[in-house]
Amino acid sequence: MAEETTPPPSRTPQLERRRRERGRRPGDRFVRVVRPYREEFQRTGPARYRVSEEVLRPRSTLGGLLDLLRRALIGRRLATHEESNKRVSKKTGLAIFASDNISSSAYATEEIMRVLALAGAGALALTMPITIAILVVLAIVVLSYQQTIRAYPNGGGSYIVASDNLGMLPGLVAAAALLTDYVLTVSVSIAAGVAAIGAISPFVYDNRVAVGVLAIAILTVGNLRGIRDSGNIFAAPTYLYVVSLGGLVLFGLFRLFAGTLPTVTAPAEWLPATAAPLSIFLILRAFSSGAVALTGVEAVSNGVPAFKRPEPRNAAITLILMGASFGSLFSGISVLAGHMGIVADPTEQQTVLSQVAAALVGDGWFFWVVQVATALLLLLAANTSFADFPRLSSILAKDHFAPHSFAFRGERLAFSTGILVLASLSMLLIVAFGGSVTNLIPLYTIGVFIAFTLSQSGMVQHWRRLRGLAWRYKAAMNGLGAVATGLVALIVGTTKFTSGAWMVIALIPLFVAVLYGIHRHYRRVEDALTVSDPEEARVEVLSPLVIVPVGRIDRAVSRALAVARASSPSVTAVHVTDDVTNAAYLEHRWQRLFPDIELVVLESPFRALVPPLLRYIDRLDQGEPGRPVVVVLSEFVPRHWWEVLLHNQTALGLKLRLFFRPNTIVIDVPYRAD
Amino acid sequence: MAEETTPPPSRTPQLERRRRERGRRPGDRFVRVVRPYREEFQRTGPARYRVSEEVLRPRSTLGGLLDLLRRALIGRRLATHEESNKRVSKKTGLAIFASDNISSSAYATEEIMRVLALAGAGALALTMPITIAILVVLAIVVLSYQQTIRAYPNGGGSYIVASDNLGMLPGLVAAAALLTDYVLTVSVSIAAGVAAIGAISPFVYDNRVAVGVLAIAILTVGNLRGIRDSGNIFAAPTYLYVVSLGGLVLFGLFRLFAGTLPTVTAPAEWLPATAAPLSIFLILRAFSSGAVALTGVEAVSNGVPAFKRPEPRNAAITLILMGASFGSLFSGISVLAGHMGIVADPTEQQTVLSQVAAALVGDGWFFWVVQVATALLLLLAANTSFADFPRLSSILAKDHFAPHSFAFRGERLAFSTGILVLASLSMLLIVAFGGSVTNLIPLYTIGVFIAFTLSQSGMVQHWRRLRGLAWRYKAAMNGLGAVATGLVALIVGTTKFTSGAWMVIALIPLFVAVLYGIHRHYRRVEDALTVSDPEEARVEVLSPLVIVPVGRIDRAVSRALAVARASSPSVTAVHVTDDVTNAAYLEHRWQRLFPDIELVVLESPFRALVPPLLRYIDRLDQGEPGRPVVVVLSEFVPRHWWEVLLHNQTALGLKLRLFFRPNTIVIDVPYRAD
Repeated sequence: MAEETTPPPSRTPQLERRRRERGRRPGDRFVRVVRPYREEFQRTGPARYRVSEEVLRPRSTLGGLLDLLRRALIGRRLATHEESNKRVSKKTGLAIFASDNISSSAYATEEIMRVLALAGAGALALTMPITIAILVVLAIVVLSYQQTIRAYPNGGGSYIVASDNLGMLPGLVAAAALLTDYVLTVSVSIAAGVAAIGAISPFVYDNRVAVGVLAIAILTVGNLRGIRDSGNIFAAPTYLYVVSLGGLVLFGLFRLFAGTLPTVTAPAEWLPATAAPLSIFLILRAFSSGAVALTGVEAVSNGVPAFKRPEPRNAAITLILMGASFGSLFSGISVLAGHMGIVADPTEQQTVLSQVAAALVGDGWFFWVVQVATALLLLLAANTSFADFPRLSSILAKDHFAPHSFAFRGERLAFSTGILVLASLSMLLIVAFGGSVTNLIPLYTIGVFIAFTLSQSGMVQHWRRLRGLAWRYKAAMNGLGAVATGLVALIVGTTKFTSGAWMVIALIPLFVAVLYGIHRHYRRVEDALTVSDPEEARVEVLSPLVIVPVGRIDRAVSRALAVARASSPSVTAVHVTDDVTNAAYLEHRWQRLFPDIELVVLESPFRALVPPLLRYIDRLDQGEPGRPVVVVLSEFVPRHWWEVLLHNQTALGLKLRLFFRPNTIVIDVPYRAD
Repeated sequence: MAEETTPPPSRTPQLERRRRERGRRPGDRFVRVVRPYREEFQRTGPARYRVSEEVLRPRSTLGGLLDLLRRALIGRRLATHEESNKRVSKKTGLAIFASDNISSSAYATEEIMRVLALAGAGALALTMPITIAILVVLAIVVLSYQQTIRAYPNGGGSYIVASDNLGMLPGLVAAAALLTDYVLTVSVSIAAGVAAIGAISPFVYDNRVAVGVLAIAILTVGNLRGIRDSGNIFAAPTYLYVVSLGGLVLFGLFRLFAGTLPTVTAPAEWLPATAAPLSIFLILRAFSSGAVALTGVEAVSNGVPAFKRPEPRNAAITLILMGASFGSLFSGISVLAGHMGIVADPTEQQTVLSQVAAALVGDGWFFWVVQVATALLLLLAANTSFADFPRLSSILAKDHFAPHSFAFRGERLAFSTGILVLASLSMLLIVAFGGSVTNLIPLYTIGVFIAFTLSQSGMVQHWRRLRGLAWRYKAAMNGLGAVATGLVALIVGTTKFTSGAWMVIALIPLFVAVLYGIHRHYRRVEDALTVSDPEEARVEVLSPLVIVPVGRIDRAVSRALAVARASSPSVTAVHVTDDVTNAAYLEHRWQRLFPDIELVVLESPFRALVPPLLRYIDRLDQGEPGRPVVVVLSEFVPRHWWEVLLHNQTALGLKLRLFFRPNTIVIDVPYRAD
């Protein structure tokens, strides 16, 4: 197998002689001789070449322009080996993985107050107790996930933990819930980010749907580039947000203790004319709206392998820092909003945060810093999903639960399919819900809590199975997490059911069914295709029935007939026509030109061409079942795309039908006019 | 060649013996033996079968439902021999071919008055002189066409007369002008018909665009049915219109002479606040608007062969009757409208005709009869184009100036492509112009007069060439027609240029260029394909280079390899990959399973699959140019359409690229999982 790679380019006499000396018939195994052009194919072994980027260079003008545009948007192509394996520190990790969670503080208080306000201004006093309840759940989740991180140092997403410990179905439910929630994270974060800018720019407020869609488009291009060294991009806005909001909260608390905290009088129409009674249900609904605060915890446990050594320890510390940062900001804003008598703006033009900031520091430069930092952080929070969704869907694809294309990596090594699907779905949601955070919130968080519950239950099972050191304590810890998040899932599902959560609850089983259907399909194909016994690979084909459809006698048909004759001794030409006179003339010419090939004429009084031919092939096939049918098609190749319209699409229709016919092989013999 | 058609169904021992006695190897020429199933294939000669309708019966449920719907809409399939050759009498002929022309009387007066009104109420006095000028042109055209009918008894459309006598280019200009005008005839007639109903139903007036589109859809279905015996459908409304409008006009003239003609006072806002000066240009523009009256003359000369014997005489008499009917109605309405002081309604809610009718007979039953008859006739006028457009485009297709599909006849023997194209274009116009007659009118008629001029000039040339009896007189007669219609074309083109005629004038050369481009393409293909010398038909193909792209080792690939091996001794398998480890494993398995087939591995660091393969084939090809390349593709056949999404489309992309590669044959080896 070594000699075929000798580089023999031109057909010199020496070469011919050398080849003959090796006992080769020229033309016979000539195929193997390819010159490894240095700029295109580089020899790396016997019968093995490495292809250079040169081969991918477009050769048409239009292709060149498109390529130029693509290069400008997403950058040069990256080879597989160029993948970056840079690890992140705790500081960068906090910025990258915690932005989703920390950014929730920008709207969590507001969403709680929005619900409580339905029962009148008095009910707003409950904002603080609900905030505390949410912080308690957050603490439990953070502690519970400490264990997940240590148990799954290679990344412990809910799908992996649940399917690993509880089985396929719970795993798929967790995956479906998470994927749904990732889409919602993008929509909600973008909508909230646009709202933050909308509070300072009426133009953005008026065009919030378009601005939201544009923002998602920018994120999409950025992610198709496969944002490398993204740490720095992330770090700035996250820390800007934490510092500026932390400063604001501290300043507010200082004025609260100093007794100089300003109060805000909301316009009367911001509160309902007739207040609803303050029911338990309403309180639970307010709690559910605030529970968005817990989204984003998953990101850290997904990202464990990206941390510097020791990965689990660094990730665990990052998770605690995240909880602490978020908790302080969230509780601070809730305290201030409560004491300042702030009411949520039902038109969503002013956010609660912007009201707090405006009242405390006026609308000077610091107000703008807070708003811009909020908007930037919310954009980055959306970006967390752009990392998580493609990764989870690629894992599902590798496990054959999602279309395999989700596992393919694009020109920049990013999972392009997942990125594009996420972008399309979240844009759709922004448009469908008019870019309103409040309208989107009811759909959000239910998925996260289902995934949390399954993941923590999986961890309980994990410890019970392993029975390692102090396993009872660990199982109890995760069990507490499972119970707490399960309870929240129940509360969220119940209180938001009619306002939108029903869509997600109905979608998840459907989604699971689709994932499972895809899996079954791939498994069936795999079973059908896999060669287990070497003997199975050595298939012999019977001499086929060869059919050549003939419309008229021309060079294209002559070529098809020559190909047909070369593949079998028994060739039948079939002419379908509605013109009997013309058929007789064709038969006459045929006998002179192709006396060795039988011509069958099918008169089609209803002028259909494809069905009679197909049925005739069926009838031939019945005569000798099992023998393969080969149909040789002569096809005219147009020079320009519009020329396709000028030729009837009979060949195309026939090809499509034959593709689905069992045991049928189609030979395409294109004929070019030039 | 006779014995192969003996009906030999089952593989009985006797049969086998008989075949052996004839010296045949079983399986070799077995192909030829097909049992002519009585219900599907009926033997009509040696190697010749007639296909029954049974073959066209859909076999899937969805196909069955679609077929049911189609049968309900357009009726059962018609065989070619079922074509009706029924001839029409003068009475039916008038109804069929004259409806377009006669229907113009419903809006011609109105369009003249609408323009004159711009110069104030006083200018309306010019309505009658302009009407007379139009009638003079009509008389000249009718007399001139008398000669065309006698000279072209097989149908003398402008395209045929012009290309016959003046050459290809004038013929194409006439064809382009006519086709444009046919589309406008449908739009204008439907818009005017809907306006007539709109005058009695505000609902129809408010939804005129939707009603217009619906009316065209109904006409389309009717024409796809290939309205047979259409005479009766046409006769009723045409005669209803002629009789009811004739009655109305006579009643009006009686009251005029009796001095009891009522006058109508138009709302003041119907006339412009500041009147434009009554310029020559405005008068000529009014004349141009009224010239719609001359459309539809072409239809009779197109339809000569449809008349009873003697065809030319009957057609000629019909043309005169048409001119007389239209002339009386048109002049009558102009006289009455002038004396009654009627003003056109700028909102197009009241037509001039409906105002005349309402003033004369009140809004009782007779008013309704007039309006309904008008609407029905206008619908039928649109239908004239549904006969003319598909026929002209089929003639162009037969002359290779239009896509050949325009010459194919559908299930009901109608030229379906032409019908559907006409319907789509005219619907588009109705929508684009908001269903307004006044907005559409400037585009209309310019095409008709260009075609008239070319046709009559062609006739002059015709007589000069023939030099028969009294040829000078005949040439002079047609010459007068050419001059008159040419003058009108000039007037129409100038006065309506800025208000819309420029679109048509710009479109016609473009359209001619497209027709010519199509012709050139077909001629080029014909030149390339036609076999002139019998030797050319006997092509021999060189032993090809056979390439089998291999993604992994499975049953589908095994089958493709078997097919490849059967077609050539030199087969190369190519594996493109970005995973070097996996490639090494595949190479290892390959050597055990297919030691006789060379496997080339192309490492693709940028993960592209198709371009490296194509470039590799190019390089192989350079080694031995001219030798055909055969690519054998193993393709997985999905069971359901959605399964296509689960398999990557590499094979499809490859196939498309290979289709355009010179000297390349693709063999599709489908593999079905079941």
